[in-house]
Amino acid sequence: MNDFDVTNLTCPIPISDYPNVLLAHGSGGILMNQLIEKIFLAAFKNPILEQKHDASVLEPGKGKLAMTTDSYVIHPLFFPGGDIGSLAVHGTVNDLAMCGAKPLYLSAGFILEEGLPMDTLWKVVVSMAQAAKNAGVQIVTGDTKVVNKGKGDGIFINTAGIGVIEHDLSIAPASIREGDAIILSGDIARHGMAVMAVREGLEFESMITSDSAPVNAIVEKLIASDIDIHCMRDLTRGGVASALVELAKSANVHINIEEEKIPVHEDVRGACEILGLDPMYVANEGRFVCFVPEGQADKVIQIMREYSDAEEVVCIGKVSLDKKGQVTLKTSIGTTRYVDMLSGEQLPRIC
Amino acid sequence: MNDFDVTNLTCPIPISDYPNVLLAHGSGGILMNQLIEKIFLAAFKNPILEQKHDASVLEPGKGKLAMTTDSYVIHPLFFPGGDIGSLAVHGTVNDLAMCGAKPLYLSAGFILEEGLPMDTLWKVVVSMAQAAKNAGVQIVTGDTKVVNKGKGDGIFINTAGIGVIEHDLSIAPASIREGDAIILSGDIARHGMAVMAVREGLEFESMITSDSAPVNAIVEKLIASDIDIHCMRDLTRGGVASALVELAKSANVHINIEEEKIPVHEDVRGACEILGLDPMYVANEGRFVCFVPEGQADKVIQIMREYSDAEEVVCIGKVSLDKKGQVTLKTSIGTTRYVDMLSGEQLPRIC
Repeated sequence: MNDFDVTNLTCPIPISDYPNVLLAHGSGGILMNQLIEKIFLAAFKNPILEQKHDASVLEPGKGKLAMTTDSYVIHPLFFPGGDIGSLAVHGTVNDLAMCGAKPLYLSAGFILEEGLPMDTLWKVVVSMAQAAKNAGVQIVTGDTKVVNKGKGDGIFINTAGIGVIEHDLSIAPASIREGDAIILSGDIARHGMAVMAVREGLEFESMITSDSAPVNAIVEKLIASDIDIHCMRDLTRGGVASALVELAKSANVHINIEEEKIPVHEDVRGACEILGLDPMYVANEGRFVCFVPEGQADKVIQIMREYSDAEEVVCIGKVSLDKKGQVTLKTSIGTTRYVDMLSGEQLPRIC
Repeated sequence: MNDFDVTNLTCPIPISDYPNVLLAHGSGGILMNQLIEKIFLAAFKNPILEQKHDASVLEPGKGKLAMTTDSYVIHPLFFPGGDIGSLAVHGTVNDLAMCGAKPLYLSAGFILEEGLPMDTLWKVVVSMAQAAKNAGVQIVTGDTKVVNKGKGDGIFINTAGIGVIEHDLSIAPASIREGDAIILSGDIARHGMAVMAVREGLEFESMITSDSAPVNAIVEKLIASDIDIHCMRDLTRGGVASALVELAKSANVHINIEEEKIPVHEDVRGACEILGLDPMYVANEGRFVCFVPEGQADKVIQIMREYSDAEEVVCIGKVSLDKKGQVTLKTSIGTTRYVDMLSGEQLPRIC
């Protein structure tokens, strides 16, 4: 499936020549050209990128477009289940998918810290290229800046994305309706805890792996199956809780969810307890909620369950108009409480 | 022309509440929502952005699209003639204009360093909003990340841009032809020297002001005037020299230019001499070269001269096939020498 295997490729800029990124690699001269040719063009190879013009010319075809952007500053750069490169593709692809767009093109802006090992850059870039292939998108334009040592942190990546909307659904908070079923695509909190476990040097019985994955194929299948999707939202920073609170406010509806229905793996729950975190607020990078008419909920679950990244898909609640703008959670002991947006800062730099 | 005047506006997040950016402002919770509502949505206000969805839905109309991206890491954030905010708009707008696209939409990705004064962020954001209005583009989607103190440098901004191509010209290096006139839109090296003067604390008799400006209106006028533009390139990092060397190689042509024709203001030339820099390699942010059939050169100059950002427009040379892939410069003392790409690192972080 992939042309690249990050483990088998050596960096095309010999370590003996340039073991580390220099300020000159960002200064518009010979070294920057070498970096672009040997690292970026080599890994991202496609006819559009090879125009090598200030901007790339695209022909996305008919339909409305969707545009999104995200910067990625995750620390550490590599974690179980992914790295900043694959994350920078999945996150932006998923943002496009969430408004029902078919992701087509990504831009890639790198801010490198002087002294970054060239080999680290290469591994990240190859991982991005693999992730883009898997998600069916092309990286069509890019930019590299280098900042002085101590003024950055290894690699920051920005990806902006363009997708086409080839259907007539209006997928947005305003389309959420009373009675809608709320479908969650899988277990939660794995991405945040995978990163925290590495960062804090925690050792658990099993290694927690990030859920980082592209979800565009799942969304495209739902649309092709005539599911009347009202709204979707991926559950990144702030977790499922913050996403639902935002949607309840935007749509001015009451979101009712049940704690028992929300899948959290045992190892993830344990890690959250050790760190004093609530999994409802921990970031995911391959999970989303989908609001659909109640009558289509079973069909949605049936379709999504076919995908390995949505095996644990489940209906976690429904929409009413009782307490507009609020999210309530029926706890496992039978009580009901309000869910708030994350108030402080829980996990910095997990994306 | 502008709704905003940066000098008259106070930051909408009271200094008494949050004088500085906190890590929590990037964590997906209440503070991030406040930052988005009070700073970004307030300044960038437009119907598309107010969808507040993961991605924004656009209807750019017919025609091919152009896409580009640039990250901005300039130090210092404010300089005579601009700041990182206006620069982040001009740079990306100009990249789109260089392939003949009409810039329409920008994304804005912010990487903030913990501790950044909130008021500094506000000034930059308002400046971006003003620059976007002046250039006729909308900021339609955005993202904010906060990194720990000492892991960034105040503000880094990424802007990606989308434009439409509404003509049938093929504006690209491959379209450059023997005999083409090379038109330079104005005097060079002012942006780089304006930034260096501030950074190095140099005092000159007059203040050197950056040439940072959007050039899309000029380009649109040329196209509307039936100029058969073969290629354009803006003269950012690496300056006019690096841009021409890249084009000579890409197009496999011989570019002949005359040193005497290239306008360099006296104060800029003096500053370059003090710092030991060659103005040919110093960055510009509102200058470009334009390759057109020789017979249209006078018309191009006549059109461009009407714009205050191109008052000093001049023909600096022509294209031949004598020494393919090379740039030669006829010096002011009558000798001819080859021009190379910038080999080391001249001015870091000037964009």
